[in-house]
Amino acid sequence: MSDNKKILVIHGPNLNLLGGRESEIYGSTTLADIEKKLREFADSSHCMIESMQSNSEGKIIDAIHSAMGRFDGIIINPGAYTHYSIAIYDAILASGLPVIEVHLSNIHAREEFRRRSVVAPACKGQIIGLGWRGYLLGLQALLAEL
Amino acid sequence: MSDNKKILVIHGPNLNLLGGRESEIYGSTTLADIEKKLREFADSSHCMIESMQSNSEGKIIDAIHSAMGRFDGIIINPGAYTHYSIAIYDAILASGLPVIEVHLSNIHAREEFRRRSVVAPACKGQIIGLGWRGYLLGLQALLAEL
Amino acid sequence: MSDNKKILVIHGPNLNLLGGRESEIYGSTTLADIEKKLREFADSSHCMIESMQSNSEGKIIDAIHSAMGRFDGIIINPGAYTHYSIAIYDAILASGLPVIEVHLSNIHAREEFRRRSVVAPACKGQIIGLGWRGYLLGLQALLAEL
Amino acid sequence: MSDNKKILVIHGPNLNLLGGRESEIYGSTTLADIEKKLREFADSSHCMIESMQSNSEGKIIDAIHSAMGRFDGIIINPGAYTHYSIAIYDAILASGLPVIEVHLSNIHAREEFRRRSVVAPACKGQIIGLGWRGYLLGLQALLAEL
Amino acid sequence: MSDNKKILVIHGPNLNLLGGRESEIYGSTTLADIEKKLREFADSSHCMIESMQSNSEGKIIDAIHSAMGRFDGIIINPGAYTHYSIAIYDAILASGLPVIEVHLSNIHAREEFRRRSVVAPACKGQIIGLGWRGYLLGLQALLAEL
Amino acid sequence: MSDNKKILVIHGPNLNLLGGRESEIYGSTTLADIEKKLREFADSSHCMIESMQSNSEGKIIDAIHSAMGRFDGIIINPGAYTHYSIAIYDAILASGLPVIEVHLSNIHAREEFRRRSVVAPACKGQIIGLGWRGYLLGLQALLAEL
Amino acid sequence: MSDNKKILVIHGPNLNLLGGRESEIYGSTTLADIEKKLREFADSSHCMIESMQSNSEGKIIDAIHSAMGRFDGIIINPGAYTHYSIAIYDAILASGLPVIEVHLSNIHAREEFRRRSVVAPACKGQIIGLGWRGYLLGLQALLAEL
Amino acid sequence: MSDNKKILVIHGPNLNLLGGRESEIYGSTTLADIEKKLREFADSSHCMIESMQSNSEGKIIDAIHSAMGRFDGIIINPGAYTHYSIAIYDAILASGLPVIEVHLSNIHAREEFRRRSVVAPACKGQIIGLGWRGYLLGLQALLAEL
Amino acid sequence: MSDNKKILVIHGPNLNLLGGRESEIYGSTTLADIEKKLREFADSSHCMIESMQSNSEGKIIDAIHSAMGRFDGIIINPGAYTHYSIAIYDAILASGLPVIEVHLSNIHAREEFRRRSVVAPACKGQIIGLGWRGYLLGLQALLAEL
Amino acid sequence: MSDNKKILVIHGPNLNLLGGRESEIYGSTTLADIEKKLREFADSSHCMIESMQSNSEGKIIDAIHSAMGRFDGIIINPGAYTHYSIAIYDAILASGLPVIEVHLSNIHAREEFRRRSVVAPACKGQIIGLGWRGYLLGLQALLAEL
Amino acid sequence: MSDNKKILVIHGPNLNLLGGRESEIYGSTTLADIEKKLREFADSSHCMIESMQSNSEGKIIDAIHSAMGRFDGIIINPGAYTHYSIAIYDAILASGLPVIEVHLSNIHAREEFRRRSVVAPACKGQIIGLGWRGYLLGLQALLAEL
Amino acid sequence: MSDNKKILVIHGPNLNLLGGRESEIYGSTTLADIEKKLREFADSSHCMIESMQSNSEGKIIDAIHSAMGRFDGIIINPGAYTHYSIAIYDAILASGLPVIEVHLSNIHAREEFRRRSVVAPACKGQIIGLGWRGYLLGLQALLAEL
Repeated sequence: MSDNKKILVIHGPNLNLLGGRESEIYGSTTLADIEKKLREFADSSHCMIESMQSNSEGKIIDAIHSAMGRFDGIIINPGAYTHYSIAIYDAILASGLPVIEVHLSNIHAREEFRRRSVVAPACKGQIIGLGWRGYLLGLQALLAEL
Repeated sequence: MSDNKKILVIHGPNLNLLGGRESEIYGSTTLADIEKKLREFADSSHCMIESMQSNSEGKIIDAIHSAMGRFDGIIINPGAYTHYSIAIYDAILASGLPVIEVHLSNIHAREEFRRRSVVAPACKGQIIGLGWRGYLLGLQALLAEL
Repeated sequence: MSDNKKILVIHGPNLNLLGGRESEIYGSTTLADIEKKLREFADSSHCMIESMQSNSEGKIIDAIHSAMGRFDGIIINPGAYTHYSIAIYDAILASGLPVIEVHLSNIHAREEFRRRSVVAPACKGQIIGLGWRGYLLGLQALLAEL
Repeated sequence: MSDNKKILVIHGPNLNLLGGRESEIYGSTTLADIEKKLREFADSSHCMIESMQSNSEGKIIDAIHSAMGRFDGIIINPGAYTHYSIAIYDAILASGLPVIEVHLSNIHAREEFRRRSVVAPACKGQIIGLGWRGYLLGLQALLAEL
Repeated sequence: MSDNKKILVIHGPNLNLLGGRESEIYGSTTLADIEKKLREFADSSHCMIESMQSNSEGKIIDAIHSAMGRFDGIIINPGAYTHYSIAIYDAILASGLPVIEVHLSNIHAREEFRRRSVVAPACKGQIIGLGWRGYLLGLQALLAEL
Repeated sequence: MSDNKKILVIHGPNLNLLGGRESEIYGSTTLADIEKKLREFADSSHCMIESMQSNSEGKIIDAIHSAMGRFDGIIINPGAYTHYSIAIYDAILASGLPVIEVHLSNIHAREEFRRRSVVAPACKGQIIGLGWRGYLLGLQALLAEL
Repeated sequence: MSDNKKILVIHGPNLNLLGGRESEIYGSTTLADIEKKLREFADSSHCMIESMQSNSEGKIIDAIHSAMGRFDGIIINPGAYTHYSIAIYDAILASGLPVIEVHLSNIHAREEFRRRSVVAPACKGQIIGLGWRGYLLGLQALLAEL
Repeated sequence: MSDNKKILVIHGPNLNLLGGRESEIYGSTTLADIEKKLREFADSSHCMIESMQSNSEGKIIDAIHSAMGRFDGIIINPGAYTHYSIAIYDAILASGLPVIEVHLSNIHAREEFRRRSVVAPACKGQIIGLGWRGYLLGLQALLAEL
Repeated sequence: MSDNKKILVIHGPNLNLLGGRESEIYGSTTLADIEKKLREFADSSHCMIESMQSNSEGKIIDAIHSAMGRFDGIIINPGAYTHYSIAIYDAILASGLPVIEVHLSNIHAREEFRRRSVVAPACKGQIIGLGWRGYLLGLQALLAEL
Repeated sequence: MSDNKKILVIHGPNLNLLGGRESEIYGSTTLADIEKKLREFADSSHCMIESMQSNSEGKIIDAIHSAMGRFDGIIINPGAYTHYSIAIYDAILASGLPVIEVHLSNIHAREEFRRRSVVAPACKGQIIGLGWRGYLLGLQALLAEL
Repeated sequence: MSDNKKILVIHGPNLNLLGGRESEIYGSTTLADIEKKLREFADSSHCMIESMQSNSEGKIIDAIHSAMGRFDGIIINPGAYTHYSIAIYDAILASGLPVIEVHLSNIHAREEFRRRSVVAPACKGQIIGLGWRGYLLGLQALLAEL
Repeated sequence: MSDNKKILVIHGPNLNLLGGRESEIYGSTTLADIEKKLREFADSSHCMIESMQSNSEGKIIDAIHSAMGRFDGIIINPGAYTHYSIAIYDAILASGLPVIEVHLSNIHAREEFRRRSVVAPACKGQIIGLGWRGYLLGLQALLAEL
């Protein structure tokens, strides 16, 4: 039962630019659009979500820490930090919260270095390549688990 | 609108044993349970699904081929073939169908060799580590796309 | 003198789809077209050919085995199995027959993983990137050798 | 006490050709000879053995599955699949049966790629390079364990 | 014609210490000296430059974002982030601005890990090893292009 | 003689969570406990210590810079940045201060990626796996050197 | 229709020694023999061929350049340069001519370093291991294409 | 016929501690127990065995040398030297004796570095993971061969 | 003061074809155009330049040698030799002259093998991706240094 | 409470030469000096130490074995064996004693091969680069733990 | 008996500059000095030597070819070509002459890439790091062999 | 002038077996033969040599140490330790003596792992593949240097 569950949604570096350039990779949906869809879904699911975006690895870690005791789970799109931020991996592990990693594009069909997620082993699961719907599916999965 | 859409669900090697041994990794849900949930979901979504399981790489390729012109998309859990079957990768590419790759467990939190999917670049997306719900989420994503 | 020579032609996984999708890589010639050209060439060369296509590694190995004592040589396009089927490599070695490996497209100008053939060291030679003509050239070379 | 124990013996790809070509590597003993020796040994040990050979990865997996509940252990020579079949590795793990991997030749004194067994970590042990006697020794070890 | 062009100059981590220690590698010119030379050059070229220095990857990404629509191009010395910040690479790609990467020292004649720039593929070009003059040359090239 | 020496202690990402979760790896001592022990030790050694914790790579670099001219040495536990922050490595080199790297747990007995410290070559030494005592030993070594 | 087509045949380093030593690898046919066979074939095909042999990478590149506008295609056996001459690869790409790479011996059944052709991605195709006949087959394929 | 055959059994480094600590890996059988079983087996097989244990690579090499002309074969468990002692590999090759390598535990199911035996290519065969029985099986195989 | 300075400009393999094919990579400027711009720049800078182009590694080395004592510095675009000519690297080191390496295109945004310059550590600096202007900027930097 | 504790100190290969050559790396303190300091420290700590030095891997393993039941912990500087002696790693694991690995110099600031310790995962901790004081700090840590 | 033996001495790229720059690596002996010593040695040994130097890989190959039938052996210092010229390796193999590879400096104590000789497996032996004396020793060895 | 010079000759593992088995690699000369030739050469050169052979890495290190102050140089054939004994590398470095590494066979024409000498960078030079003469040449070079 997801009533009253609180989920933190974290958008990593460069995701604030979504819907602008490189739409052939990321689509034309903006971050505000995604936020709107997430909020509508949360309303209909009787859960609460809060979201933040940052280009700073340190602030993303701070956000994960701050979620401990205040949120029931996290949806995270770590952007480029996916591929090297062991510090975010450590933060997720230390938080003890269920975390779902979401990527808008199919990271396996792009540059070779995008195929490795250092964050993935600390997460519950990954949803990749399904665009903005990936966030809703992740939220749905997280609520179902809780 | 997903009415009348037809989706093929392919279960790769060893998935016929689900719910028996190694439940600490794969959970206790059996393949029949997953089939049942998929069918209920399909009914409520007014789409049709068909599924097959095989331990043979060749039969999985045959199944992908046979889906061309008969199905609108594929949900595939290639099991261990995920990690080396370039032939399945080629079959997915050649089929031209939207395919979503699903893994029950978090393949990034197990043996190192499970972290690489050779199939992934040919798929639309991946859903990893979310158990049997991953199939439903994949189906949902596929229908939404079509 | 090639009169009465018998050659087995083996088409590996996904080659049954030739001439359909991905024609920018493989061309628009179908497998039936290639078969027809091979048969015409065989007729004019007074040799006999037999061919089979399979998506199954095991059946390709069975076919190589069955050629022992019944055929004088093999033309094989192992498709994606080229890159990892040590079992087919072993079958070719064990057969003791002269085998020529053919690839329709230039496997060196595609994905990195296609550049390695594990089968090649067991073959007499390779013909790569010359389309359907590669089969005829391979047949010609095989007959000339015998 | 090995009375009434049932052991499945699985011979992988190309082993049907044993005793023919490449006898400098594999010796001149045929698969039928090995079968005969195994049966004589089984008789004298009051155990039952059943055996199968296949060139197909999928059928080998099927055989491992079918052994669950019907056999007490498995002797397997996975042939070339030894070096890449994660699917057979998974099948062995999933079966929960004690499995002994046997290789006729010293795989460490041949091509570099033969030195790695992806199957080995799922097995109880390995017997390598001891020819047909390796099967009898494996059977002996398996019975002693049970 | 470079009149009225606006260029952002970004100095990455540790560059605030220039001219102090390690002068055998970086020379004795301070960041203030470089700024002065850049400004004099900008004046004589009738362009405008603005510069920032930060030790924080996140702030460098913020700066690149903020340049969109406000600047015509970027000169960046990403310091140590050159070698691992895929997030800065992504920011440059997303900005759509022409960017020139500058390094004071010859990064190929130092530690092995300095030879790889993950940022370079997203830039228009690189100027390496030419000391403070590299900035002026980069500016010159950028203005010539615009 | 360590009288009047001033040492900066830097705690990297996620170390603010010490003593909470993952105590099987890091023990139950909190960062405050470590601070207290360090201060008692400093008092008895007639030196002064100051400490900071940050999850931000940039702020850690700022702290190292700010230590130049104000402190006689640094004790640093770079947390996960140990494994990829060339920028911190550069900052330590540029500072010219003696720095001792401390890790609470034995980084060699955990994930493979934790075995490499990119920071270590710039430090005077490393103390690994000795828990909170590592900090005191590091401080002791630093004072002895000065 | 191949009438009037002009083909340049380039023999790389050490091929002038053909038919002498190492005949167990390269056979006893000399370069003059191959030239003779090529000329006979050209005559019967109503095309013109010209050939050159050089041990110098630079002269081979010069030859490729000189073929632009004067020849309709190239048959090249780059000898050892196959494995490292990016300059020849560049020359082939720049020439815009269809080029077929020929190797007398099966380069996959010799030293490991011979298995990689850096030239291959720039060529139309490769014919490997078919001895002097490989040249005739290459010529045939080139004429058929034109 | 194994009457009068003499076999040297060599136990490598740390095997003197068998049966003490780490019994979850190596079992509780002591080296003395194994010796006893070997001697009983030798008695019943009418062969003679001699054994030695050493932690020193040099002494193991000395022992192999001393076996030349005095023994008919060697059973060796090289312990950790398995993974790096090219000197023992050379000694086995130089001795010309048939040697069987035995490992108590499944070296493929432990640390990655244990999966490679540098000694194996010089041996006749390997018996792995079958505990103390591995020694008896190795002895049996050796006697059968002689 | 650059008066009377003499600079040798070396153009490596395939650069004689500039401005012809592959203009999407290298632009439409011919080598003659670049020469003209260099000469105009040299005139206005009161320095003298001489240039040579060769497809031969040996002749490029000869040219570098001949520059010793006759020129004050070298601008070199080693073309494909950039990636493997240790001999040119050695020649530059041995010459003792300041050398600037220039590449027309961004070698980091093309094939992976183009990202490594074996020549770079022997040079003073590199200018990459700035087209023909790179030569002028290199000349400018060289003169400023002298 | 460290009263009556007994610690074995093991000095590996070449450490007998300390204080002689290569003092720029290892300092001018001799092994006798270190022994003296260790003994003074032990006296003041009311513990007992015994030490040995050997250039032989086997004797170091013997020493570790002999410490079982007779000592409470070990301080070891394995010298060059650090980087390849899996046998010493095994001995430490088998001993079950707490072991601290000490290196006089910063092994991370020397040759690349010195950066890997195969011994480290079996030890409790490491003290690196702190000269002879490293031994005293290690002893102190060991006593504090006991 | 070395009377009347004829030896070709080949000096590879950049060796014409010997005795000038980089004397800390190569010494101050010039190539003329080495030639003189070789000739004196040849005179006293009643053999004849001829020598050539070239910066061109192709000319070195030509020289090796020309030695066939005219010389009894070759002394070669392939300079930088040592590390990548498979074409020279092939030429040596094809020549069938005994060849000794000489390097003035210890190539193992310089850049990592100098440690690999691709030429060495085709030579009879190597003499490394013994300066100009290496040539005399090589000549001596060659004559002794003949 | 070599009068009165004292040289230590060290023969590594398995060299005591020289002249017996594997003569196709090492020749039929025994170690005693080599000793005799060395002594004759030493007599004629008015120098003194002493030699030792050991299969033990530790004893070889002891021997190198003992040479300090007593010998003027060392000739060493480290046998298989060549490829992994960093401890011998360290001993040579620490000894400060000029050392020449000798190998009887061409280590570059055998197994891949024999191509790397970890000892070489610490030596003055290497003589490889010249059989027993290599020792005499090494001695000659050493005396010439002293």
